[in-house]
Amino acid sequence: MRIAVYPGSFDPVHSGHINVIRRAARLFDRVIVAVAENVEKGRGIFTVAERVAMLSEVVGDLPTVEVSAYSGLTVDFALARGATCLIKGLRAVGDFDFELKQSAMNRRLAPSLDTLLLIADPEYAFVSSSLIREVASLGGSVDSIVPALVAERIRAKFAG
Amino acid sequence: MRIAVYPGSFDPVHSGHINVIRRAARLFDRVIVAVAENVEKGRGIFTVAERVAMLSEVVGDLPTVEVSAYSGLTVDFALARGATCLIKGLRAVGDFDFELKQSAMNRRLAPSLDTLLLIADPEYAFVSSSLIREVASLGGSVDSIVPALVAERIRAKFAG
Amino acid sequence: MRIAVYPGSFDPVHSGHINVIRRAARLFDRVIVAVAENVEKGRGIFTVAERVAMLSEVVGDLPTVEVSAYSGLTVDFALARGATCLIKGLRAVGDFDFELKQSAMNRRLAPSLDTLLLIADPEYAFVSSSLIREVASLGGSVDSIVPALVAERIRAKFAG
Amino acid sequence: MRIAVYPGSFDPVHSGHINVIRRAARLFDRVIVAVAENVEKGRGIFTVAERVAMLSEVVGDLPTVEVSAYSGLTVDFALARGATCLIKGLRAVGDFDFELKQSAMNRRLAPSLDTLLLIADPEYAFVSSSLIREVASLGGSVDSIVPALVAERIRAKFAG
Amino acid sequence: MRIAVYPGSFDPVHSGHINVIRRAARLFDRVIVAVAENVEKGRGIFTVAERVAMLSEVVGDLPTVEVSAYSGLTVDFALARGATCLIKGLRAVGDFDFELKQSAMNRRLAPSLDTLLLIADPEYAFVSSSLIREVASLGGSVDSIVPALVAERIRAKFAG
Amino acid sequence: MRIAVYPGSFDPVHSGHINVIRRAARLFDRVIVAVAENVEKGRGIFTVAERVAMLSEVVGDLPTVEVSAYSGLTVDFALARGATCLIKGLRAVGDFDFELKQSAMNRRLAPSLDTLLLIADPEYAFVSSSLIREVASLGGSVDSIVPALVAERIRAKFAG
Repeated sequence: MRIAVYPGSFDPVHSGHINVIRRAARLFDRVIVAVAENVEKGRGIFTVAERVAMLSEVVGDLPTVEVSAYSGLTVDFALARGATCLIKGLRAVGDFDFELKQSAMNRRLAPSLDTLLLIADPEYAFVSSSLIREVASLGGSVDSIVPALVAERIRAKFAG
Repeated sequence: MRIAVYPGSFDPVHSGHINVIRRAARLFDRVIVAVAENVEKGRGIFTVAERVAMLSEVVGDLPTVEVSAYSGLTVDFALARGATCLIKGLRAVGDFDFELKQSAMNRRLAPSLDTLLLIADPEYAFVSSSLIREVASLGGSVDSIVPALVAERIRAKFAG
Repeated sequence: MRIAVYPGSFDPVHSGHINVIRRAARLFDRVIVAVAENVEKGRGIFTVAERVAMLSEVVGDLPTVEVSAYSGLTVDFALARGATCLIKGLRAVGDFDFELKQSAMNRRLAPSLDTLLLIADPEYAFVSSSLIREVASLGGSVDSIVPALVAERIRAKFAG
Repeated sequence: MRIAVYPGSFDPVHSGHINVIRRAARLFDRVIVAVAENVEKGRGIFTVAERVAMLSEVVGDLPTVEVSAYSGLTVDFALARGATCLIKGLRAVGDFDFELKQSAMNRRLAPSLDTLLLIADPEYAFVSSSLIREVASLGGSVDSIVPALVAERIRAKFAG
Repeated sequence: MRIAVYPGSFDPVHSGHINVIRRAARLFDRVIVAVAENVEKGRGIFTVAERVAMLSEVVGDLPTVEVSAYSGLTVDFALARGATCLIKGLRAVGDFDFELKQSAMNRRLAPSLDTLLLIADPEYAFVSSSLIREVASLGGSVDSIVPALVAERIRAKFAG
Repeated sequence: MRIAVYPGSFDPVHSGHINVIRRAARLFDRVIVAVAENVEKGRGIFTVAERVAMLSEVVGDLPTVEVSAYSGLTVDFALARGATCLIKGLRAVGDFDFELKQSAMNRRLAPSLDTLLLIADPEYAFVSSSLIREVASLGGSVDSIVPALVAERIRAKFAG
C-alpha cells in the first residue's frame, strides 16, 4: 500500500491545501494530512485541535484521507506511519527555495523517504495561510479561498 | 480623474520610494501615498505620524501627490478614495514573489481595483527600509539613500 | 490624454494577453496594442498582418483600444504615438528577469517613458504563446486558452 | 497499478536522470521512461534510438522500469499507457519556472493526469544534458556525471 | 597581503561554512572568519564566545585562518582589519536576493571594499544553520552536516 | 602571484564588463580577460579578433590586466595560465541559475580551480551584450552603456 504524508500548519486550511489533498488522494492508496504541533507560539489563529477538526470535516468525503496531529520531526512521523513519501505543494519561487533545503535535509534524515511536489493549480497559486490571517485580521473577506465552515470560524475568532 | 494609491510602511521613506512617487506622479492625475498603520508593533523606528510628516516634506513640491495614513485593508482605503489602481515598486525576485500573492489577493477582495508595478530604477534597486534601519542602528551612514531631512531624524533617533 | 502602448509578438494572441488589454483599457484613456515586426524569421506561425487582424477582431468591442504593427525600437514607436508608458504583463520569475533588463534599457533610451507591469491573473499565469505553438504543432487543443477565432485559424494552419 | 511516465530528451542520459528514475521506481508500480521524438533537429548528439538503447542498458536492473520513445503530446502518450501521473526532476529556479507553465498546460490538456516533481539530490542538482554536450564537444571529461557506457559513446561521437 | 573577511552568525558552524573557509584559504593570504555579535537576542543556540571557540577548533589546522567576534558594521570591522574584500557563500535564490541588497549597501558604505561570492559546493548547497537548529530542537540528528565537536555540543544543549 | 581569469564572449564589451574588470584588478595580482572562441556562428556582431582589440584598448590603462582569446574548455585555459580562480559577474536571477550549473561543472573538471562571483554594481545590473546587440540592430543608441570606441564601431557595423 502506497502511503503519503502531507505535512503542514494548516492555520487555517484553505482551497489550495484542499486542491493538493484531492489530487494526492488520486495518486496514493492512503493520504495522511499531518498537522504540525511545533508551530511557534502565539502566531496562529487556531489551535492544533481546531485545525485537525476543520480539516477532518473538509476532507470527510475522501475515505482514504486521514487527518492527524504530530509533534517532533516530520520524517519520524511519516516513517512511523509507514509512508513512502511526503507530499508538498509548490506555489512561487519562495516555496521552491524552502523546499529545496527542506527536502535535502529530510533525505539526509530519512533516506528511504522521498518528497514529491505538486504544483498548485493556477487558481490557488497565490493563496497562503499567512495572507489569509492578515486579511481576516483586518476585517477582509476570505470566503472565496477557504471552505465555508472555515470562513465562519475565522469570522467567529475575529468577532470575539 | 485617474487616482493611484501607493501603499507602504515607509519606515523610513528612502530614495527608492521617492523615485516611484515621482514617476507615478507623471502617470496619474493624483497619487495618494498611503502609510499603513497596521505595522507590527516595536519593529519600526518612526511612528506613523512621523512617517507621514517626513513624506509630506519630501514630496511637498509635487502638487498632485498627497500623503495619508490609513488602517484596515489597503483595498478598502483605495476604493474609499476613488482610486482605480494601486502602485507598487519592484526590486528583486523576493518582492516579485510577494507582490504576486498580494496582488492576486487584492483582486479577489476588490476586482475593480488593479495593481501596477514599477520596476525600481537601477540605482535604487537594492535599497530597502529594513536594511536602512539595520545600518543606522549600527551607526552607519545612510545619507546617500535617504533625503537629508530623513538622515537627520534617523541620526537623532539613534543618538537618543 | 493618457496613452499606453502594450507591445509584443502576439503569435498568437491568447487569453492572458486579452486579460492584460482589458485591464489596461480601464486604466488609460487609450491603449495601443503594438505588434512587433522584428521577430526572427521562420519561428512564428502567423504573419504580422494576420496577428494584427486577429487582435483587431478580438478587441473590437473596446473602443479605446487600437491595434498597430510597428518596426524599429519600441520606445520610438511609443513616443511617436504620444504614449506616456509601456504596459507589460508579468507571469513568472523568468519574465521578471527579462523585464528588469528591458525596462532599464528602455528608460535609458527614452527617460520620459515609463514601464508599468500588470501581474497576470492567476488563471492566465502560465499561458504563453510559445507553449501554445508547441502544443498546437503536436496536435493538442488550445481552445481553452485562446479566443475561438484564433483556435480555428491555428487548426487551419496546422491542418495545411 | 500505479503507473508513472518520466518524459524527457535524455540526450544523453546522466546521473541526475538515473537518480530520478531509481527514486520513482520505489514510489510507483511501474515507471515508463519516455524519450521524446519531437526534439528540434540538429541540436542533439544521439538519435532517439541510441538514447533509448543507452537508457535501457542503464536501467536494465530495474524490472519495473521500461524505456520507450514517443511522438506527439506527452499527455496523450501517458494516457494511452494508463499512467496516472508524470514525473519531472527539479534542479534550479529555471526548471521551476518551466515546469509551472508546462504542468499547468498539461493539466488543461489532460485533467485526470497529474505532475509530480522530484527535487534532484544535491550531488546531481547542477547536472544538465546541455552542459554535458557543451563540455564534451570541447573535449572535457563528463565521466563523473554519466554512466560509463554513456561516457564511452560520447567519446566515440566526438572522436569521429 | 590579500586579506578577506568571511562574516556570519555561525550559529552553529556547519559543513557548508567550512567548505567556504577552506576554499577561501586557498584564494587569499589571510582569511578572517568574523562572528557577528549583533544577532537578535534569544533566537540562537550558542553564545558568540561559544561560536568563536567551536570555529577556532574546527579550522585550527589552517594557519592563515583567524576567527574573531565583531560588533558594529561589517565593513568597519573589515576595513579596520585591512581587508580588501568580504567573502559570502551563495546557496539558493533567496541568498542571492539578500546578497544583492547587502553587497550594494556595503559598497555604498565602503567603496574600496568589495564582496566576492563563492557558490556552495553541491553537497552543501541546501545546508543552513536555521534548519540545523530546527532539526536539532526536534531531536533529529545533524551529524552528517556539522563537525563532530559541534554535533556533540548541540546534543549537550538540547539534552539540557 | 594570484591570477584570475575573467571569461566571456564580450560581443561587445560593455560598461558592466569594465566595472567587473576594474574591481577584479584591485583584488588579484593579475587578471586575464579571456574571450571565448567557441561562440555559435552567425549570432555575434564582432569577430573574436575585433573583440580582443576593443577590450585591449578599453583596459589599456590597467597594467595588470591582459586580454587573450582562447578555445577549448575555460578551465583548461585557466589552468594553463596558472590561474587559481575564475571571475564571473552576476546580475539577475537568470545569471545565478546559469552560474550555479557552470561553476559546479567547472569544479568537477578542475577541482583546484575556484569560481568567484562579483555582483554587478547597480548602475550596470541590467546591461547585457545581447540587449545591446538587439537595440543597436534596431538603430537605438547604446552610447550610455558601452565605451565610446565600442559605440563607434557598433555604428560602423550597422551602418554597413
